[in-house]
Amino acid sequence: MRGLQLDADLTARVLEGFIHDEISKFGFTRAVVAVSGGIDSALTCVLATRAFGPANVLAVLMPYRTSNPSSQGDAELLVAQLGNPSKVIDITDAADGYLRTQADAGDRRRGNVMARMRMIVLYDQSEAFAALVVGTSNKTELLLGYGTLHGDMASAVNPIGDLYKSQVRQLAHAVGVPAPILTKAPSADLWQGQSDEDELGFTYELADQILYLLVDEWFAPAEVMAAGYPEPLVRQIAERVRRSQFKRRPPVIAKVSDRTIDRDFRFPRDWGL
Amino acid sequence: MRGLQLDADLTARVLEGFIHDEISKFGFTRAVVAVSGGIDSALTCVLATRAFGPANVLAVLMPYRTSNPSSQGDAELLVAQLGNPSKVIDITDAADGYLRTQADAGDRRRGNVMARMRMIVLYDQSEAFAALVVGTSNKTELLLGYGTLHGDMASAVNPIGDLYKSQVRQLAHAVGVPAPILTKAPSADLWQGQSDEDELGFTYELADQILYLLVDEWFAPAEVMAAGYPEPLVRQIAERVRRSQFKRRPPVIAKVSDRTIDRDFRFPRDWGL
Repeated sequence: MRGLQLDADLTARVLEGFIHDEISKFGFTRAVVAVSGGIDSALTCVLATRAFGPANVLAVLMPYRTSNPSSQGDAELLVAQLGNPSKVIDITDAADGYLRTQADAGDRRRGNVMARMRMIVLYDQSEAFAALVVGTSNKTELLLGYGTLHGDMASAVNPIGDLYKSQVRQLAHAVGVPAPILTKAPSADLWQGQSDEDELGFTYELADQILYLLVDEWFAPAEVMAAGYPEPLVRQIAERVRRSQFKRRPPVIAKVSDRTIDRDFRFPRDWGL
Repeated sequence: MRGLQLDADLTARVLEGFIHDEISKFGFTRAVVAVSGGIDSALTCVLATRAFGPANVLAVLMPYRTSNPSSQGDAELLVAQLGNPSKVIDITDAADGYLRTQADAGDRRRGNVMARMRMIVLYDQSEAFAALVVGTSNKTELLLGYGTLHGDMASAVNPIGDLYKSQVRQLAHAVGVPAPILTKAPSADLWQGQSDEDELGFTYELADQILYLLVDEWFAPAEVMAAGYPEPLVRQIAERVRRSQFKRRPPVIAKVSDRTIDRDFRFPRDWGL
């Protein structure tokens, strides 16, 4: 689809500048990135490294005992190519320290605990490294709500949150992300063999096209169907966007005064008080 | 200060209705609250209990090995008075599962890890209880940035986020929060003897007055000083508000398309797609 095509060089330069400027604004010159071995975090790490240089970008690798060992290998391949300092911090003891008290927790609860445990480690390492957390959630995931609030969705700045998954792929290819990362099936890697597209029930390619029409081209669901996309899929995707709106907003605060946080009291008007 | 006086009965009714309506909107009829033994969470738990009845509000008590044992006692007193189901989940194993690998972590890092560990437990318990998380951060803390992002600041709905600390006190008194909770010194209770006001270096009473003038009355810092408040304190508080702005907003997303999440693509216009 034409609207999903990027000018890769220009976009990479814009995002590199975005990371540099947004982090500098807060008085920092360093970044931390959770490098999972997947394409989103690989692209993010490349962009952050371009912005601040390899020595100023800490790559944090956070396996759990059920993670696929090849994920860590792919993450190490990327880090070796870029020359970042890196830390491997296994989250098993921390996650199981809680999860073993919750025998009835299924995959969904366990996955959320793991994603949030990685957030804790990443934010703590950012404090130790005097850096800000650069996020790795793409626009497709964010719109579908396919991510954990206060987990992988947490960051200070997110350079790829306005890129659909297929655009992440184009850009990752253009900036030289290693081939094993470019070609493998997308997975949250909460257990071996997990696949995003199996879990979602549709491909990212199709989801991106439908989301692009709904969100960027302002099509109504009926218009997307008229353009040739199957009705159940369009409805399912539109419903996912609607139901996950809460994940993309801060907590709702009850308004009882004249100036309420995130309602009347907001950036940028209040930046300088 | 007159502007900080509340009509307690009316405010309690408004907040009870807010909790009920906001949670119902998402299709839920139950709530979870982290009950710490402090006044903010006690008030929140009372309001949530009024909204949905005691059986539908799960109180989660999350001690760490360095918590003051009297905090749990105070939390249990409240829960016994209200009749909520409750769970005690000690976060020591989970927190230390990570922290023992970080020997150089000081109080600030340790405190953030604990606050975020409680978030993990609370969100996981909300999933198990089919409920939403009700937040317990007040306006004073939120404006000062005196809280942990993705930790105690995380919630689905926050009934007390527009109430200054002194207003929380008025309301807690009016709705019958037990006396030991009303009278003790505010503390994050990350270690015994910790005191909010010692850490901040000023009292909540004074901070509330200055914040009220800056935020609600639109005073410039110089006008607050002219009203009789000490210059260093006014500057310090204004600076804290400015520097903590990032904690009150979602991650900044680099804009590269026509419709960017939290920029052009926002509730409520996009609620129905």
